[in-house]
Amino acid sequence: MITVEEARALLFELISTLPAETVALSDAAGRVLAQDIEATRDQPPFEASSMDGYALKATEVELHAMFKVIGESAAGNRYTGRVGPGQAVRIFTGAPVPEGADSVVIQEDTERRGDLITISDLPSPKTNIRPSGVDFKAGTKISPPRRLRAEDIALMAAMNVATVPVTRKPVVALISTGDELVMPGETPGPDQIIASNTFGLKALLEDAGAHVRILPVARDTVSSLETAFGLAEGADLVVTIGGASVGDYDLVSDVSTGLGMEQSFYKIRMRPGKPLMAGRLGQTAMVGLPGNPVSAMVCGYLFLLPMVRRMLGVEQVLPPLRTARLAEPLGENGPREHYMRAMLDETGIRACSDQDSSLLSVLAQANALLVRIPHDPARPAGDEVQYLPI
Amino acid sequence: MITVEEARALLFELISTLPAETVALSDAAGRVLAQDIEATRDQPPFEASSMDGYALKATEVELHAMFKVIGESAAGNRYTGRVGPGQAVRIFTGAPVPEGADSVVIQEDTERRGDLITISDLPSPKTNIRPSGVDFKAGTKISPPRRLRAEDIALMAAMNVATVPVTRKPVVALISTGDELVMPGETPGPDQIIASNTFGLKALLEDAGAHVRILPVARDTVSSLETAFGLAEGADLVVTIGGASVGDYDLVSDVSTGLGMEQSFYKIRMRPGKPLMAGRLGQTAMVGLPGNPVSAMVCGYLFLLPMVRRMLGVEQVLPPLRTARLAEPLGENGPREHYMRAMLDETGIRACSDQDSSLLSVLAQANALLVRIPHDPARPAGDEVQYLPI
Repeated sequence: MITVEEARALLFELISTLPAETVALSDAAGRVLAQDIEATRDQPPFEASSMDGYALKATEVELHAMFKVIGESAAGNRYTGRVGPGQAVRIFTGAPVPEGADSVVIQEDTERRGDLITISDLPSPKTNIRPSGVDFKAGTKISPPRRLRAEDIALMAAMNVATVPVTRKPVVALISTGDELVMPGETPGPDQIIASNTFGLKALLEDAGAHVRILPVARDTVSSLETAFGLAEGADLVVTIGGASVGDYDLVSDVSTGLGMEQSFYKIRMRPGKPLMAGRLGQTAMVGLPGNPVSAMVCGYLFLLPMVRRMLGVEQVLPPLRTARLAEPLGENGPREHYMRAMLDETGIRACSDQDSSLLSVLAQANALLVRIPHDPARPAGDEVQYLPI
Repeated sequence: MITVEEARALLFELISTLPAETVALSDAAGRVLAQDIEATRDQPPFEASSMDGYALKATEVELHAMFKVIGESAAGNRYTGRVGPGQAVRIFTGAPVPEGADSVVIQEDTERRGDLITISDLPSPKTNIRPSGVDFKAGTKISPPRRLRAEDIALMAAMNVATVPVTRKPVVALISTGDELVMPGETPGPDQIIASNTFGLKALLEDAGAHVRILPVARDTVSSLETAFGLAEGADLVVTIGGASVGDYDLVSDVSTGLGMEQSFYKIRMRPGKPLMAGRLGQTAMVGLPGNPVSAMVCGYLFLLPMVRRMLGVEQVLPPLRTARLAEPLGENGPREHYMRAMLDETGIRACSDQDSSLLSVLAQANALLVRIPHDPARPAGDEVQYLPI
């Protein structure tokens, strides 16, 4: 068995960063920038007033000085003449500063009668003029990798970028396996339960930027599994859930090997989620997750999310572990890395009392995975521990 | 002028929580639960084995004890007979425990020859049986308000919830105003710039769960603004950007008043973003944001996001302010609340050097808004300050 860290490294060998595609700017939020974006213009493209007021010559400003208003410069409609001595141009925020003027006196510091203004309050020495290109200049770049935030979208709009090169979304196909499973909305037989893993993993991976296809449940037969793998065609990553344990009915490994899978590894020294296998099927990465729902979701956080982020070209594939103080003592850990469902609040972090890997109700209440290294000793309340927020 | 807090309270009076709609479970992630969800079944619906092994009577287990294997219970296909004395049933993880058995000895603790097994290692006293209903029982509820995470989706699937009542998405119409604006991809005239606010705000509000419509740019004429307001029909919130300052060309207030807007307030004592107005136009809330791009985005964080969350019925409309230590000293603050663009890293938080509200390049580098109260004194490096993550 290998460690979580070793498994992640091997999983990364199965994938690579996906190619770029072009999307409209209004669809680019949350996507990962794939190539340099370059401004083709200065912003602002002209000297612009930062206030409503009067554009004039700074050297002429003194208390009670009088100016003749010769015109007006509005955003989008500049004054095309020149400001001479004793002259001023009414100007609005964002409007181009007319030639001959080098300062804007704000409206509140003036009094106006007809075409004449008087400086009624001695203005601050600020010019209230934004130099052209002060926000960015033509040639300014935004460089990948970068998951695009709202602020980036606004900046790219200002740069006149209408379409954006982003990494194509990884296509992930999810196959749950097992005769015991029916889909939500169906009526389960007495021995059956509802397929939940695919729905939870879809939500998790789509939030990270994947496109997820939930395939029909594969039954515990060779032909049903082969059909499911066939339906997964075109996916960048195929994930099976269940059927990878030690039972006699573990067909997933047999069928995928029969389809030509080169196995990378099998089993990780961790809890929950021990049975996990991985390999490559042609161009497609394949990961087999354990069927217990909590194990599947924890493996989603620890392995699938980093794989999706790596395919997207994101630099930080796993958020850094955080630290918190134990609100309650913890027993010693066994020989496997343990990712305990835990609740974090202002009093500290506490492991949920029942860590059975079948309990989705516990997972839904948890907001952290408390990380324990193999053979971590018992710890008293107050000890600092590491966790992954979920 | 009113405070940010007062403005938010007045804005909340303009809106209410929207009605529920029903979506498929696979579309429910990130949506806000609107009504109680109730499990209609126990999970597991039967006593289930948590391991691969043999189901038998616990009282008969001792080292070297021998059992006859009379059948097999797999997930989805239970053994329908009864386990008698000296008998065992091969069982797999998740399978129903057959009648007569009350313990599962794991496979690794047994040796098998033909139809006989022998206990080869004295097993732990654990039964390896999950009681029926241990995850949840019929009638267990998930209650609103709750923005649905991947874990909630998995749990609802297990509860056999195929469709989910969620709050309808607030429809937000964004109108930028000004003769100086063209849309990204167009060729601006010499006095023109690119409309960026609507694109940034769309990304911001859609991430919070709104459905956002970017309307055509309204020109600085009454008829163009009236057309834009007409196109906004059906929106829950109409946001205008620009044209709300003190300039002679501030038509937004005039036109919206002419259309029947009941004004709630005008101007907030804050930086950036002083010009801000709000009111109600029939059933629609209306907010007028300043046109400087940084001001518009900061107002998006402080006012529009909380309004969207309030319409969705989310409890926490604004994330709690966090604290960090200043990495660099700060000058004293003026009479207005100031939301400074700032960079937070492991060395502390520092305000960006240029706080001009036109600089989108600065905003795109920032990851925090450093919050200063009116007349906050100058502060040395190391002082604790409050910030809002962005």
